[in-house]
Amino acid sequence: MSELQIDGPRLLEKLDELGQIGMSTNGVNRVALTDEDKLGRDRVVAWMQELDLEVRVDQIGNIFGIRAGRNDSAKPPLMTGSHIDSVIGAGTLDGSYGVLAALEVINVLNENQVECHRPIAVAAFTNEEGIRFQPDMMGSLVAAGGYPLEQALDTIGTDGRRLGDELIRIGYAGQDACGSIRPSAFIELHIEQGPVLDNTGDQLGIVQDLQGISWSEITIEGQANHAGTTPMSMRNDAGYAAASIITGVRDIATRLDGGQVATSGSVSFGPNAINVVPGVAKVTVDLRNSVESQLLRAEEELDALIRNTSEAEGVSIELQRLARFQPVQFDAAICRCIEQSATELGLRTRRMTSGAGHDAQMMARICPTAMIFVPSTEGISHNAAEHTDPDDLINGAQTLLQVLHRLATC
Amino acid sequence: MSELQIDGPRLLEKLDELGQIGMSTNGVNRVALTDEDKLGRDRVVAWMQELDLEVRVDQIGNIFGIRAGRNDSAKPPLMTGSHIDSVIGAGTLDGSYGVLAALEVINVLNENQVECHRPIAVAAFTNEEGIRFQPDMMGSLVAAGGYPLEQALDTIGTDGRRLGDELIRIGYAGQDACGSIRPSAFIELHIEQGPVLDNTGDQLGIVQDLQGISWSEITIEGQANHAGTTPMSMRNDAGYAAASIITGVRDIATRLDGGQVATSGSVSFGPNAINVVPGVAKVTVDLRNSVESQLLRAEEELDALIRNTSEAEGVSIELQRLARFQPVQFDAAICRCIEQSATELGLRTRRMTSGAGHDAQMMARICPTAMIFVPSTEGISHNAAEHTDPDDLINGAQTLLQVLHRLATC
Repeated sequence: MSELQIDGPRLLEKLDELGQIGMSTNGVNRVALTDEDKLGRDRVVAWMQELDLEVRVDQIGNIFGIRAGRNDSAKPPLMTGSHIDSVIGAGTLDGSYGVLAALEVINVLNENQVECHRPIAVAAFTNEEGIRFQPDMMGSLVAAGGYPLEQALDTIGTDGRRLGDELIRIGYAGQDACGSIRPSAFIELHIEQGPVLDNTGDQLGIVQDLQGISWSEITIEGQANHAGTTPMSMRNDAGYAAASIITGVRDIATRLDGGQVATSGSVSFGPNAINVVPGVAKVTVDLRNSVESQLLRAEEELDALIRNTSEAEGVSIELQRLARFQPVQFDAAICRCIEQSATELGLRTRRMTSGAGHDAQMMARICPTAMIFVPSTEGISHNAAEHTDPDDLINGAQTLLQVLHRLATC
Repeated sequence: MSELQIDGPRLLEKLDELGQIGMSTNGVNRVALTDEDKLGRDRVVAWMQELDLEVRVDQIGNIFGIRAGRNDSAKPPLMTGSHIDSVIGAGTLDGSYGVLAALEVINVLNENQVECHRPIAVAAFTNEEGIRFQPDMMGSLVAAGGYPLEQALDTIGTDGRRLGDELIRIGYAGQDACGSIRPSAFIELHIEQGPVLDNTGDQLGIVQDLQGISWSEITIEGQANHAGTTPMSMRNDAGYAAASIITGVRDIATRLDGGQVATSGSVSFGPNAINVVPGVAKVTVDLRNSVESQLLRAEEELDALIRNTSEAEGVSIELQRLARFQPVQFDAAICRCIEQSATELGLRTRRMTSGAGHDAQMMARICPTAMIFVPSTEGISHNAAEHTDPDDLINGAQTLLQVLHRLATC
């Protein structure tokens, strides 16, 4: 284990400084390619320059700060980082923590004049949150070759603005071809955004995979009827069918067990009156699993649930697939490296699955990738109340330092 | 059986004429105490006067057209009728049919110079629908002594107007004390507003009771969480709890069987997002039964369902009772009289329970009461598509004529 130590207060100070950019009464508003995002980018670029990193910006606006290796022409860079764009009313950690912890690692390597065998690139990807321009994780997806650049630039935002025009407006329409930096590996440090570590008391998560996601909207058509005069046997109750699907979706998760999660987060009935049997209903289903075959099985069980419910209640049911992403398996060797580093630091670790999407899942398409999680208090995220203990933030950054040092010097 | 015959075309013509008052693109809009209601009232009063009825209006605006009996000072009148106010976007039959069929009966008695032993009063009660001023069935409730006149007059409508002022404005703040006419019996002819007769193929319903109603709003508080990162075992899902209650409410109706109906017509989740485990949910429950002890049992089972759901899912649940009416038993002798009359007319009859509220349930507090139902096509009501076959409308009126003739001449 290296004796290198990150400077915790310095990291926390930078997190606080970046967190002030776009801060409002409801939390951080640094939505992709807004004026606030530009100010945040300018700050990160200035910090990269202070650290003597070579700053490069690609055509989708991803920012890379590159620290040369001993022989930088010979080896592809080791890459780390995350994003600095935010949702509306965000906390200060989501994304920013991974970028600023990476800069802190560079700072320590510079201070200690550590020469690495390969370059280290710190990435701040464009538009990870996807709340103004869709899809989310766009910058890393384009960099990984998973989405055409022109299509991304032509994306129209919720405010009617074109992404490519907004990139030019804020001065981050770069010259580099997307994907021109092909890393040897990618490590993303991030807050968990879920309750697992906070509940188990573990200090660090080694993220070995990322859930696949299947989103559906289910529309049910029955027959609206008088709640008093319609005998139970004559009903075609769209609301009851929706409720049966919601409870059935829970049953699917329970039956499949393992990592399967299933959620019905949104519902509506029509006409939605206390004394009318619902004639129409809509319900959404969010299925996630880190194993593709299991996710497929959950989808099949949902289809069967819909068929059975339709038949039993005499209603017509249609399923529309809103989104579908396959699970991502992270690199076993990098996971072992993270685990070893954290264990040497004396941290209680846990192998885990990411339930949220991250830039790392896109980078996993082109290089060995893994993630490091630190606990999120009560699992709260995408909310101004988002919080991680400073000690946990410092432990995460210290682990990242050990992992990067190990991988960059080998 | 009397040889008297109602004039079907004349009845249908009046139904059509009254139906044009307040008719709009969405159906009939003759909401209580609006200008359209006034025009409808004026028309009904004019028809009463054409039939030589003595028109009386009480202080809540109920209209009574009274046909004298052979010795009208000696006997309390036999009363029939319904209401002419409508919901928004109504059909032409709900309420109006009972009033106009009663006037047609009077017309036939007059034409045939039938002298009855007792007076017959045709009632058009104020504000049965209750969509502008609550509670519904207000005119008959006040006439039956179940609600203080002053409180009714002080009711503020959904448009901010005071009921008493609106009565004066449209010229129907009458002088008679409410309840000053105490009938010997009350018979209400009405469309079923449900699918039973349409489904069974019966032509006429003898309504022997009216369901009691228990309305509740159930509020659930759990914990909003990320749909991907929150393991199933760590959830306190308000939406799942709401769905469990909706399916459980159906189970209650199935278990109690008999006439028990149970409906969850309205639901909401918060934050109601596809990828968030619901933190809050609301659901309504409408329980109806014609037997009070059974309705009480259904309420107890709902309480148990809530306790069990709260415990199983780790959520807090509160029930607020929004409304509670006891079931009404109609008069057995009048039901037999209706059945006998209809059978003599060769109609296929069915004893049944009213699932909707009617003025008759209020009148049942002060005199022997029953109702006659005619089929509603597909059970559709409170909708411009409300429809009853003209033959069924005529059969219903013919039955009413026979029943009134029998009861008024005895």
